[in-house]
Amino acid sequence: MEGKVGDRVFVETKDKKMEGILMPSNKDDSIVLKLDSGYNLGVLKKKVKSVKVLKNFKEKKVKLKEHKPSKNKKKVCILHTGGTIASKVDYETGGVVAKFKPEEILSMFPELEKLANVDSKLVRNMVSEDMRFEHYNLLAKAVEKEVKKGVDGIIITHGTDTMHYTSAALSFVLENLNVPVLLVGAQRSSDRGSSDAAMNLICAVEFIVNSKFHGVGICMHKNADDDVCWILPGLKSRKLHSSRRDAFKPINAKAIAEINYKTRSVKMLEKEKEKSNEKLKLKLFKEVKVGIVKAYPNMFADQLKVFEKYNGLVLIGTGLGHMPITEIDDFTKENKKILDQIKKLVGKMPVVMSPQTIFGRIDMNVYSPGRTLLDIGVIGNLSDMTPETSYIKLAWLLSNYPKEVKEMYMENLRGEFNERIGEEFL
Amino acid sequence: MEGKVGDRVFVETKDKKMEGILMPSNKDDSIVLKLDSGYNLGVLKKKVKSVKVLKNFKEKKVKLKEHKPSKNKKKVCILHTGGTIASKVDYETGGVVAKFKPEEILSMFPELEKLANVDSKLVRNMVSEDMRFEHYNLLAKAVEKEVKKGVDGIIITHGTDTMHYTSAALSFVLENLNVPVLLVGAQRSSDRGSSDAAMNLICAVEFIVNSKFHGVGICMHKNADDDVCWILPGLKSRKLHSSRRDAFKPINAKAIAEINYKTRSVKMLEKEKEKSNEKLKLKLFKEVKVGIVKAYPNMFADQLKVFEKYNGLVLIGTGLGHMPITEIDDFTKENKKILDQIKKLVGKMPVVMSPQTIFGRIDMNVYSPGRTLLDIGVIGNLSDMTPETSYIKLAWLLSNYPKEVKEMYMENLRGEFNERIGEEFL
Repeated sequence: MEGKVGDRVFVETKDKKMEGILMPSNKDDSIVLKLDSGYNLGVLKKKVKSVKVLKNFKEKKVKLKEHKPSKNKKKVCILHTGGTIASKVDYETGGVVAKFKPEEILSMFPELEKLANVDSKLVRNMVSEDMRFEHYNLLAKAVEKEVKKGVDGIIITHGTDTMHYTSAALSFVLENLNVPVLLVGAQRSSDRGSSDAAMNLICAVEFIVNSKFHGVGICMHKNADDDVCWILPGLKSRKLHSSRRDAFKPINAKAIAEINYKTRSVKMLEKEKEKSNEKLKLKLFKEVKVGIVKAYPNMFADQLKVFEKYNGLVLIGTGLGHMPITEIDDFTKENKKILDQIKKLVGKMPVVMSPQTIFGRIDMNVYSPGRTLLDIGVIGNLSDMTPETSYIKLAWLLSNYPKEVKEMYMENLRGEFNERIGEEFL
Repeated sequence: MEGKVGDRVFVETKDKKMEGILMPSNKDDSIVLKLDSGYNLGVLKKKVKSVKVLKNFKEKKVKLKEHKPSKNKKKVCILHTGGTIASKVDYETGGVVAKFKPEEILSMFPELEKLANVDSKLVRNMVSEDMRFEHYNLLAKAVEKEVKKGVDGIIITHGTDTMHYTSAALSFVLENLNVPVLLVGAQRSSDRGSSDAAMNLICAVEFIVNSKFHGVGICMHKNADDDVCWILPGLKSRKLHSSRRDAFKPINAKAIAEINYKTRSVKMLEKEKEKSNEKLKLKLFKEVKVGIVKAYPNMFADQLKVFEKYNGLVLIGTGLGHMPITEIDDFTKENKKILDQIKKLVGKMPVVMSPQTIFGRIDMNVYSPGRTLLDIGVIGNLSDMTPETSYIKLAWLLSNYPKEVKEMYMENLRGEFNERIGEEFL
């Protein structure tokens, strides 16, 4: 087949003709074409009738801006992990910017240099759904290194798919964190006209420079317009749309702050917490196996059996924290088996309840099936953590406090849940 | 132990004293007390030191209203399945209204009689998380019976936990449905001052009487105030809060209509669809086993193995429809195993992708891990159905069209997804 990565090509298949830039493909059996619309299209090689090179790829020399540190500016380090925010492609050449050096970042987003002394490190180049606990540890160590060097704030560029899992993980791992650590992603890659990458990055730097915030947050669009970014709490946020730029929402919480991109004003929406006098301490993830099971009608008990070999389990129950566990007629015999299997699991490990509704609080006291779950030892009652934060917290406790999980799960360690005021379910 | 259901009692445990009405308990080892606050409290019998009866239960004779059918009014049948909306408790007696006769319904909500000729049937009395496919079939048969009798509309009272699963199921099962079938629930039981039961029921009847709508919908509060109810599409809605009265939201869709409880005006928000000339046909669920697996960081391949014995599987992927399937370093070896296991499953059964973000559309063409999933045969690309509707649709197709699942899954059979307009991910 003709053509190499970066070439402008004309491709003909049995039923289609198309033109675009040949992109790197991760599979031997297909090619990837960047269409002029900016859209990436994967085509199986066996379907391709012909590829004609229209223009050969020629690397364009990007004139890198020199990095001139200024004494009056705050120090911000960008830790890079991959994701859409980093997938900048040169339209003319089709080449992909693979590694981020500070000079490259500043060339892509020259405005950053006016705001702060920006340094940058590549931690990993991966899509965020592949992240595992060891990557949280890598990131935590990279943060510690920068904190020791005396940075004023850290930005982690990150794929958006699992950004809220990582923000929750770092919130637990980084004990006594006294600088801001902001996860920043993008829903459209930097090479598209509609990209949200630059605005999210610039707002994150503005926030670090102009606030006293410390802790882990997420910086993303507040709405679909390109005018305001939100700083969201790392432990109480979630991706709630697959493609919109304002995909991240606070859950059972308010945003911490908003940054107006046009006026560059930072407005705090939550009170700033006092800094700790202690030094930053890493409490890393260990090799633990924690499962997640969502409750649904007509589920079967057999799917729970494998978790007997795990260290912990998160149930995503319906409503206030329920599972199909009651045999009430001939059709519900399986439900009794589900109860028996949950009982077995509770005897071996901590099993926590989290809300399938995402918003709201678990309350297993209200209805009798909930009380049954409480009685057999399911924990997490009255929690208003998302299923994702519940999962991360359980795995982190199993890593660091394996003997105290049941007690500590409902302690408010990092602001992961709201105290219950009154009895809101009456 | 002293006291029987309905008695007003004084209970003393090691550390607490409380007074309330003794309620039915589903477990031998505990008692349930309805406190004066309206809150139900479960107490283990072994913790109880003493129970003193303050006032014996005496059944109060409720004067039932006589049911007088009027020729000028529309006929509405209420099919009852249980749930919070039905958990009315007489405060004075502590007795629970267990069975719904039309007279009882009208005594509880006398206003209904002014609006329509209301009939009522008990289908089951259960909490909705226990529902299985056979209950959907029971309900469909009950609907058919009423349609044959010539009712103008049907209301199904239902627990809210899985109401959106049932509404999706009935939307598929009831082919050529030419009357409105509205699922109505409550977030606070009818015996509480703040109950939403009456308003949701009355709005549902108002909607049936004053609109030409046909199809399956959900009638619940639009907001936290007691002024407006929404009619939500049965296939594109979801419970998104564990306790608020406005817990149900439309997903990737608009509400069908709103009913102002104060002015009693019905406002259509969506165009009414044309009725079918065909007769109602039931396409029931069969005994199929379908699993649901949510993607999450640090998951393990072993949890997927059990599904080899199932008929189908729904993946709840991150972002645009991704799973952790790429080995990029020493930490991600498990991801490769997950890919291999998914491949194995796809060889045996339909495996569909659905969005963990809940809102938005799956698009596995955008990033290469998504294209890998498409290439190995995962279906559901470009779907904007919730995970719950995806699950119900897959199980229903496996029940009725086992050989055509892969083709029919992406056909828009009942309005379960929106056609894609343009390329919204650019």
